Amino acid sequence: MKRVTLLTDFGTADGYVAAIKGMIAGIAPDVQVDDMTHDIPFGDIEGAAWTLSRYWRLYPEGSVHLAVVDPGVGTARRPLAARVDGRLFVAPDNGVLTRVLRGADNAALVQIDEGRYTAAEVSRTFHGRDIFAPVAAHLANGVRLEDIGSATTAPFRLELPEPGRDTAGVHGRVAHVDRFGNLITDIPADWVQPGNWVGIGDRLVGPLRTTYGDVDPGELVALIGSAGTLEVAVRDGSAARMLDAGRGAPVRCRPREE
Amino acid sequence: MKRVTLLTDFGTADGYVAAIKGMIAGIAPDVQVDDMTHDIPFGDIEGAAWTLSRYWRLYPEGSVHLAVVDPGVGTARRPLAARVDGRLFVAPDNGVLTRVLRGADNAALVQIDEGRYTAAEVSRTFHGRDIFAPVAAHLANGVRLEDIGSATTAPFRLELPEPGRDTAGVHGRVAHVDRFGNLITDIPADWVQPGNWVGIGDRLVGPLRTTYGDVDPGELVALIGSAGTLEVAVRDGSAARMLDAGRGAPVRCRPREE
Amino acid sequence: MKRVTLLTDFGTADGYVAAIKGMIAGIAPDVQVDDMTHDIPFGDIEGAAWTLSRYWRLYPEGSVHLAVVDPGVGTARRPLAARVDGRLFVAPDNGVLTRVLRGADNAALVQIDEGRYTAAEVSRTFHGRDIFAPVAAHLANGVRLEDIGSATTAPFRLELPEPGRDTAGVHGRVAHVDRFGNLITDIPADWVQPGNWVGIGDRLVGPLRTTYGDVDPGELVALIGSAGTLEVAVRDGSAARMLDAGRGAPVRCRPREE
Repeated sequence: MKRVTLLTDFGTADGYVAAIKGMIAGIAPDVQVDDMTHDIPFGDIEGAAWTLSRYWRLYPEGSVHLAVVDPGVGTARRPLAARVDGRLFVAPDNGVLTRVLRGADNAALVQIDEGRYTAAEVSRTFHGRDIFAPVAAHLANGVRLEDIGSATTAPFRLELPEPGRDTAGVHGRVAHVDRFGNLITDIPADWVQPGNWVGIGDRLVGPLRTTYGDVDPGELVALIGSAGTLEVAVRDGSAARMLDAGRGAPVRCRPREE
Repeated sequence: MKRVTLLTDFGTADGYVAAIKGMIAGIAPDVQVDDMTHDIPFGDIEGAAWTLSRYWRLYPEGSVHLAVVDPGVGTARRPLAARVDGRLFVAPDNGVLTRVLRGADNAALVQIDEGRYTAAEVSRTFHGRDIFAPVAAHLANGVRLEDIGSATTAPFRLELPEPGRDTAGVHGRVAHVDRFGNLITDIPADWVQPGNWVGIGDRLVGPLRTTYGDVDPGELVALIGSAGTLEVAVRDGSAARMLDAGRGAPVRCRPREE
Repeated sequence: MKRVTLLTDFGTADGYVAAIKGMIAGIAPDVQVDDMTHDIPFGDIEGAAWTLSRYWRLYPEGSVHLAVVDPGVGTARRPLAARVDGRLFVAPDNGVLTRVLRGADNAALVQIDEGRYTAAEVSRTFHGRDIFAPVAAHLANGVRLEDIGSATTAPFRLELPEPGRDTAGVHGRVAHVDRFGNLITDIPADWVQPGNWVGIGDRLVGPLRTTYGDVDPGELVALIGSAGTLEVAVRDGSAARMLDAGRGAPVRCRPREE
């Protein structure tokens, strides 16, 4: 069974997501539609890029990922479709695919410009329904990416600073704060070792440990999170609140206690 | 693949929606169930009617739309099933189908009174699970509408004022405020023209434009929205907050600047 | 069509639920995944146990229920799989299955310890993705419960007080407060009769009635709810707010007015 997954910042109450699903069901009645989330904060492209990075590769090849966080609808930003390592994508050209493309071995992009695969009438304010949903449905039906539009390059990419290493140790930043208040960093697991000391901003967190259970409830803990990167958490609590830290906060990891 | 769509004001945390899905899965195991929304504000029948209007016709014929916003459960309001332009509906007779019926070419209604198609025991407080879900599942399985209950007419309809025209121009009202704070009116696109001047309440919005990008961020813009009606928005902001306007606010559109 | 249902306290915005769905889609591409809820309050095992109790048996035999509210991930709590009255379950051994097991005729439990059916790498912080999702997918594919792990007994159970009867009448407690503010008790329907008098804490509610419509809007009403137990509600309002009562509040039911 082919699948189309949906990520938006629309919420569900107004029927925008429902309209996207209806458009897909009308074109591709045998495709299963999976909700990923509709709770991305309004216009938070960097947050959407993070969330998308958590699941796109777990889906089997041939799956179609729709990612519509699109504050620029009605401006000149291009509508894109892509094939990345066997998975298909439809999204505005605003950076939401930045993390997908960064980790890709093979990527092909097209600008959606073939009217055969979009709605008969395309509104100026809801490309999710009129462009991205029908293209996703046609891709799930087996239409070739190359038939959706003309090949393109140079997609817009978010400037996401890379973590680095120097003689003092490793430095990076908080890439995402999740609903539990965990501070997920961009420092890869294999750059750090058990016992290294971790800090965020001007606060010392402590040594790198293995799991939440290594500290008492309410205490800070640094560990390798499920994204495969360094993460700072509070057991049964919120590290974001305890450290008053958010996305972009500087993170460092040193060989031993400072 | 047949589909049943679900719209409720139940939220998901308490398991009410889950019970509806379980009831459907038990009766119609091969039917796909699509969540439209469970975040309609509690008891907001007019909001539900609006949201339902955004997707029901996009689904292919034969799809079943369940719409259970039902503050009157446990009173004498009737449970209905309907076929409207090829799509099937189950809903309480409280006005939630008002916008569906208004735009219909063909509509047949029955009052659900055939116990074969409801749960063995029908609670007094949860007709979503005990009446509407099993009937939706049986309809998706191919049971005929006429076998579900006895033909009826005169469904309860919300009194939704119609927009009007006079020598001064066009007048209507805000029909829905979405999560972005966009004020979606009931004035049809073909009643207005680029350059017409739009006002809401005692506030002047400005001339009718084409898209969000026609104004600077933070500015008011009047345009044709994705519902095919006049809409007032703030680019990257909330028109509802800026204008302190909500559902029902009077809207006017004049040929030129007042 | 086989189904896997999902209940978590993850919310959807961070991509955790999406990763669970991707893992399932990769292993069991023809299985339908149904969202039950992702809005269980963080770490609320008792709330999750309640919600799970509302739907698990409505799904057809062979369905797989994943229930991951897992504040103890990263401690020694065991990952379980179970078959209860024909339905399959995957969950941490923290009490979330308490209500399922309590009402069961037949239950078999295994501790998940067979690495063939979990992810190639198991993180220390996200067993939902790495253990529970792949096991659920394999069970939906037809892998036998007995092949998932070794038989076990004595699952952790929440201590849920039982309702009781004495010469003065019936007593129990509020088992769940739903989004509408309804106070759902653990007193079974067949322990009470119309006209019995109901109280919560030190407040008298009134006689047991049949449905919401038996009182005026804004008034308290005691009735048999859709869980098959005594429930206290306010018509078009919140009993939890009016009575300032929550989960665990003592409930009594007497033969006649006190």
